[in-house]
Amino acid sequence: MALRFEILKQDGAARLGRLYTPHGVVDTPVFMPVGTQGTVKAMTPEELRALGAQMILANTYHLYLRPGTEIIREAGGLHRFMHWDGPILTDSGGYQVFSLAPLRRLTAEGVIFRSHLDGSEHLFTPEKVVALQEALGSDIAMVLDECPPYPASREEVTAAVARTTAWAERSLAAQSAAQALFGIVQGGVYRDLREQSARELVALDFPGYAIGGLSVGEPKELMYQVLDWTVPLLPPEKPRYLMGVGHPDDIIEAVARGVDMFDCVLPTRLGRHGGALTPFGRLNIRNACYARDFGPLVPGCDCYACQNYSRAYLHHLVRAGEILGLRLLTTHNLHFLLKLTAEIRAAIARGELGLLRARWRERCGGNRTVLEAEGDT
Amino acid sequence: MALRFEILKQDGAARLGRLYTPHGVVDTPVFMPVGTQGTVKAMTPEELRALGAQMILANTYHLYLRPGTEIIREAGGLHRFMHWDGPILTDSGGYQVFSLAPLRRLTAEGVIFRSHLDGSEHLFTPEKVVALQEALGSDIAMVLDECPPYPASREEVTAAVARTTAWAERSLAAQSAAQALFGIVQGGVYRDLREQSARELVALDFPGYAIGGLSVGEPKELMYQVLDWTVPLLPPEKPRYLMGVGHPDDIIEAVARGVDMFDCVLPTRLGRHGGALTPFGRLNIRNACYARDFGPLVPGCDCYACQNYSRAYLHHLVRAGEILGLRLLTTHNLHFLLKLTAEIRAAIARGELGLLRARWRERCGGNRTVLEAEGDT
Repeated sequence: MALRFEILKQDGAARLGRLYTPHGVVDTPVFMPVGTQGTVKAMTPEELRALGAQMILANTYHLYLRPGTEIIREAGGLHRFMHWDGPILTDSGGYQVFSLAPLRRLTAEGVIFRSHLDGSEHLFTPEKVVALQEALGSDIAMVLDECPPYPASREEVTAAVARTTAWAERSLAAQSAAQALFGIVQGGVYRDLREQSARELVALDFPGYAIGGLSVGEPKELMYQVLDWTVPLLPPEKPRYLMGVGHPDDIIEAVARGVDMFDCVLPTRLGRHGGALTPFGRLNIRNACYARDFGPLVPGCDCYACQNYSRAYLHHLVRAGEILGLRLLTTHNLHFLLKLTAEIRAAIARGELGLLRARWRERCGGNRTVLEAEGDT
Repeated sequence: MALRFEILKQDGAARLGRLYTPHGVVDTPVFMPVGTQGTVKAMTPEELRALGAQMILANTYHLYLRPGTEIIREAGGLHRFMHWDGPILTDSGGYQVFSLAPLRRLTAEGVIFRSHLDGSEHLFTPEKVVALQEALGSDIAMVLDECPPYPASREEVTAAVARTTAWAERSLAAQSAAQALFGIVQGGVYRDLREQSARELVALDFPGYAIGGLSVGEPKELMYQVLDWTVPLLPPEKPRYLMGVGHPDDIIEAVARGVDMFDCVLPTRLGRHGGALTPFGRLNIRNACYARDFGPLVPGCDCYACQNYSRAYLHHLVRAGEILGLRLLTTHNLHFLLKLTAEIRAAIARGELGLLRARWRERCGGNRTVLEAEGDT
């Protein structure tokens, strides 16, 4: 078995854990920066390490289309190709096929889609997606799932759950390497379908479970509700991964419900658009009010950007389209989320997650306001 | 006097020197990476230091228009604003006004131009440009000059030389800080006009002299010819700066003729377009032949990019539009030129610049071929 998970401490439903992978040990709850195309945008692996990143995510869909998984296999696998020797989780491409690729068509075999790059036609089957991830050599692979949009009708979600279970079974049967493969619970915002999906996948005995199809536009309260229904049905001794979630308050709420792993493009994407995560909400450095603001992005923050540069300089860089500007904002945002998860782990260790959660909820009103004012990125 | 220049060793016309500035000592011959908008594109100051950069250049024209020199003054000067505590040279904006800005108009006072950003109208006078650079707080400032295009008629160049001398005189009179101000020799490719410009400026006794209006499209041999005419007329005890020149072979040829300082956007701009400097010419990493090339960019190169990544990965990053790709190529290219200038200094110290120059000339045929095939960037 390529994966071992150890729970060191519980605080309510929250867990402090350790995930043992072929490329090292990961402390959970963990936030995984997203390296869609085999690079966490704008960052070097050494910089990620220095920020405290323990595990990163890469996208099978993107790497399959470009440069091609065969080239990465020839290069000695994704770790070597991208010069990151820590653990990597690859998603299955299910979400991308159902959100990015045009003209998808479901068949008995799998899903046919067109590349968003050149329009060429491709088939993903559960078996092929397992083989692709084995070629990439990731530490954790994900099964191909069907991720319906939000909102989706009961009928659509019912079909997606059935297909996801059938594909999950085929994925397990297709494995040829000792790669840890996670099942993905679907079911939209329908309680019985979430429960059915969880039960069916748990019966297949995966080494870990993801919760998919959330943070796709549904209200936050509904997302937390789905976690309340789903997480208790997952085996307590196995890691739980909430896919695509990385807003600070969502991470805290999900950890409090027993989730161990997270990934999100938020810190990197926001950074490339001039946005900074702060304890009191987001800050858009492009705003004219920062042109003569010679203080740091976040007073007291110990990241490289806040320690060495002013808001006025960052404002100038971003307005002028300078790469250093988005590097510095990306650095700050990743530092913010990685430090938050480190604080979450420390809080669980002390049995004080409730305190951290309450403190965050107090701020959260302000945070939400800014989120709504600026729109979601 | 804000600047002291010491010549440690001569090898033919080439000089090994030391430039003492308020922000530190610079070994010459020196290559200055260009930080047009107050940042050397894609790089942090710490990375520049680690690559061996000793002094950088920033553009008065760009910083005046955005964010505005007043904001930089309020921030405590350009060094503090951009977090670079080494020496900075600022150009005067003369070249930019005469190449970038539309609708320029010469008056008795100076030059009126429109911003390339928003079309707003501005006046640069020699006095104003001195004041702007004093506000920026650079270690070396340049006089406002008139830089005619290539080719330009004898009449145009004659007028530009006269105006450049008149402006140089006004610039010296306008200085209120102890900033080192360099004169700029113009004169196009006309021997007598170059000689006249050099003589007139030398009579004004600047602490250093630049040679402007070269590398603007004229053949390389003509540029070397202009250096042969001009450099011997400059005071031997003062630093000589060839503006905008940074092709490896041009640096070597100019050093051999007695030039001490260089700047060029080549390494950074080339890097952002997928180009790498190599000892045998340029390499365009976008080319399909590199898709499965798992060797380093330049075998034996000890830069971060070559030590840790393959051509195949760089090819992928650049094709996918990933920021890390241009960061790595920029890093390699800056390393290449900074290491070349370090080798030039070592060669002068040993009295072996001739050997280095001959070795480079042997390769140069190949280099030129690639340059011509890919076009100048």
